[in-house]
Amino acid sequence: MDWRDYLAAHQARFTQELIDFVRIPSVSAVDAYKDDVVAAGNWVIDRMQAAGIENVRMMPTEGHPVVYGDWLHAGAGKPTILIYGHFDVQPAEPFDLWDSPPFDPVERDGKIFGRGASDDKGGMFIPIVSAEAMLKTTGKLPVNVKFFFEGQEEIGSPHLPPFITANGALLKADMIFSADGSQWSPDQPNLLTGLKGLVAAEVTVTGAKGDQHSGQQGGGIANPIQGLSQIIASMKGLDGKITVDGFYDDVIDLTVEDRAAIARVPFDEAAYVEQMGVPEAFGEVGYSVRERLWARPTFELNGIWGGWQGNGIKTVLPAEAKAKITCRLVANQKPDAIYALLKAHIESHVPKGLRVKVERLAGSADPFFVPSGHNSSTVAGEVLAEVYGKTPFLTRSGGSIPVMTMLLNELGVHATVFAFGLPDENLHAPNEFFRLSSFAKGQEAYCRLMERLG
Amino acid sequence: MDWRDYLAAHQARFTQELIDFVRIPSVSAVDAYKDDVVAAGNWVIDRMQAAGIENVRMMPTEGHPVVYGDWLHAGAGKPTILIYGHFDVQPAEPFDLWDSPPFDPVERDGKIFGRGASDDKGGMFIPIVSAEAMLKTTGKLPVNVKFFFEGQEEIGSPHLPPFITANGALLKADMIFSADGSQWSPDQPNLLTGLKGLVAAEVTVTGAKGDQHSGQQGGGIANPIQGLSQIIASMKGLDGKITVDGFYDDVIDLTVEDRAAIARVPFDEAAYVEQMGVPEAFGEVGYSVRERLWARPTFELNGIWGGWQGNGIKTVLPAEAKAKITCRLVANQKPDAIYALLKAHIESHVPKGLRVKVERLAGSADPFFVPSGHNSSTVAGEVLAEVYGKTPFLTRSGGSIPVMTMLLNELGVHATVFAFGLPDENLHAPNEFFRLSSFAKGQEAYCRLMERLG
Repeated sequence: MDWRDYLAAHQARFTQELIDFVRIPSVSAVDAYKDDVVAAGNWVIDRMQAAGIENVRMMPTEGHPVVYGDWLHAGAGKPTILIYGHFDVQPAEPFDLWDSPPFDPVERDGKIFGRGASDDKGGMFIPIVSAEAMLKTTGKLPVNVKFFFEGQEEIGSPHLPPFITANGALLKADMIFSADGSQWSPDQPNLLTGLKGLVAAEVTVTGAKGDQHSGQQGGGIANPIQGLSQIIASMKGLDGKITVDGFYDDVIDLTVEDRAAIARVPFDEAAYVEQMGVPEAFGEVGYSVRERLWARPTFELNGIWGGWQGNGIKTVLPAEAKAKITCRLVANQKPDAIYALLKAHIESHVPKGLRVKVERLAGSADPFFVPSGHNSSTVAGEVLAEVYGKTPFLTRSGGSIPVMTMLLNELGVHATVFAFGLPDENLHAPNEFFRLSSFAKGQEAYCRLMERLG
Repeated sequence: MDWRDYLAAHQARFTQELIDFVRIPSVSAVDAYKDDVVAAGNWVIDRMQAAGIENVRMMPTEGHPVVYGDWLHAGAGKPTILIYGHFDVQPAEPFDLWDSPPFDPVERDGKIFGRGASDDKGGMFIPIVSAEAMLKTTGKLPVNVKFFFEGQEEIGSPHLPPFITANGALLKADMIFSADGSQWSPDQPNLLTGLKGLVAAEVTVTGAKGDQHSGQQGGGIANPIQGLSQIIASMKGLDGKITVDGFYDDVIDLTVEDRAAIARVPFDEAAYVEQMGVPEAFGEVGYSVRERLWARPTFELNGIWGGWQGNGIKTVLPAEAKAKITCRLVANQKPDAIYALLKAHIESHVPKGLRVKVERLAGSADPFFVPSGHNSSTVAGEVLAEVYGKTPFLTRSGGSIPVMTMLLNELGVHATVFAFGLPDENLHAPNEFFRLSSFAKGQEAYCRLMERLG
């Protein structure tokens, strides 16, 4: 019996086990579920031990705990891989929008419905099952494997960086695979090659020392809202180009190959415009929508306020106005350097009669960009091509995945997303589900991955 | 005995009567004081009748009542003047900042302290006393006089326009004097020659149909805050010039004489900058601060909002952003025409990928500008020069006095402010007071005014 037969023979049990796992309401954001997060961690510990994984244990952090286990007997010259996932889930509210209770999971139409079924309980359970199939049939794994599962991903993994730093030797690996993520579609594989970084700032423009009467003082003193608007308008042109001096200096330009890889991924601009409800797409001149979304840095206003926001008029000339800005960064932009450029631009564009303060806001991430020919991504792409019979799309994301950056910063390794969720599975929304077909495909893929690496 | 002797002989009684009048808490803004507003009206009725004024009566409006009275026996060829004032007062809160209770008025250092002492109970009581002094000493007045006192000035006189329209014949006059207002200082008279008008608009810039993730959609769609800022920046230059096409077309340019009259009024720019707490004064290039404050139109943002206003960052690309704009207008700008220009400018500056809606807000006023050589202002200026021994300053105000515009619109007469409050008397603030010296000076001035007009 090889691992294929083992997986086939035990699939019904694995499905039932996934249902049991999803039943635990391990909501990391809500204090009342704190013990359930621990319970989910204990479920994972038991399940890993049952699979034959060794050194399995719960490890504390300042917040929800981590679960670790490994199997390190592949022999000399075999690589060590670290597999990441998380056993905490998003809150399930609003409950009344669920067709079946979020923590009483059911199978329907080949899908398991329940909070966390896809994100990430189904995802992180896959490599455990794959390891079991190999260990139970051959007694060994082709590579050394470390499992690193956390219980605070849905709240931004606040206590993970010090944990990783403190446990660098334990987590050390040649390659990292994340079991949290997705493929493009049921029959199209996907390899994520880039994530954007982030830097955030708040701008305060101050005029008079208190709110003034717009009739009595209008014309005498500057208006902070006017000044703030002028500053903002000076930072990005009507053509979508960011006009902050030096902003694009460290951006790695898209190569012909990069642009071809992006163009290969289907994109229906009319459908996008329809979905967003905008009159037309808009962004930096000279780039396609997808290029802008995935591979060009952005400058976005996240909030603005000042003066009277109620009904009707209040003839106030307000004392101050504020705005929040985040920039999404691409390789090789650095958050500190970009913040310095933003600050310098704003401070050299202070309108007459006003004072301006620029403050950095918490929330910073380096862009994540997988080097061309990167080891784990190359192997993952080959396995995906085998399993799906199609070359994976090479995609990027405008978002950030903080843990990818943490792992890179703390362990020096670019993680490769090797995960089998799909974008339509209602992550973070009512009626989350996970396809049993993805569950099985993922098990096969992880076994092939370990074989190929061995 | 002439009116001078009468005034001197009865000044102590008048002071006590003013204290009685101020004791009535006729706060028009607060329902609980509704009966007190009526009580103040009744006090005025009794006092006018005691003075010898005829046809005195309370007249209903949709809100607080009006008190009317007249004396119309001056004879053929004598003009009829209408004297305006109000017997309602501002709320007195916060009570604990008053040195003595706001509705238990006291005399201290030649001043009466109490809510409404200056605005406008002291002010409106003056012409009643003056009429009494003339009627009791000569049995007649030199001119026909109509008294028109309202009880809702402090809430914007919402029910006054229809009342004036419905009672046009009753209120008809050759000249109108407002007993609500102020002089420049205890020894410097002032003649108000201009008030600014007003027009208000709200701008809504809309992007996607709901808030989006700034990472996922940034670069794909336009940002409404960015777009709104670009629109606002396009409407006024960094030099303070309003850049809306046609905005200045109907503005009557300041003449050499106008500028000289404004320059004659002392203005300490350094003290103004200090008082406002700004780094420097700012406004339309080419004009002095006073010229801008008094005689040039303005474009002010009163409020702006959109997206996240809480602590820290929220990586949202908001669905919409809004701003409120008011323009202060000078003769001969018209609110309707200026609104049309604002709307046309905004609608021709819609940034790509966004939709913009412009709405007019309630609150509209024509600018008020006294024609050169205007009858009642000329006479008032002569009387003030006699009483103070100084030529009055000719000043304007950046604010609006709605009732001045109402009287002009409904009766076709430019009212002249002939009133004796002073700017330091804590109007609308704790510890409001009225100087007994102003009280006496005003009585003399109203007697002289009537004499001169007769």
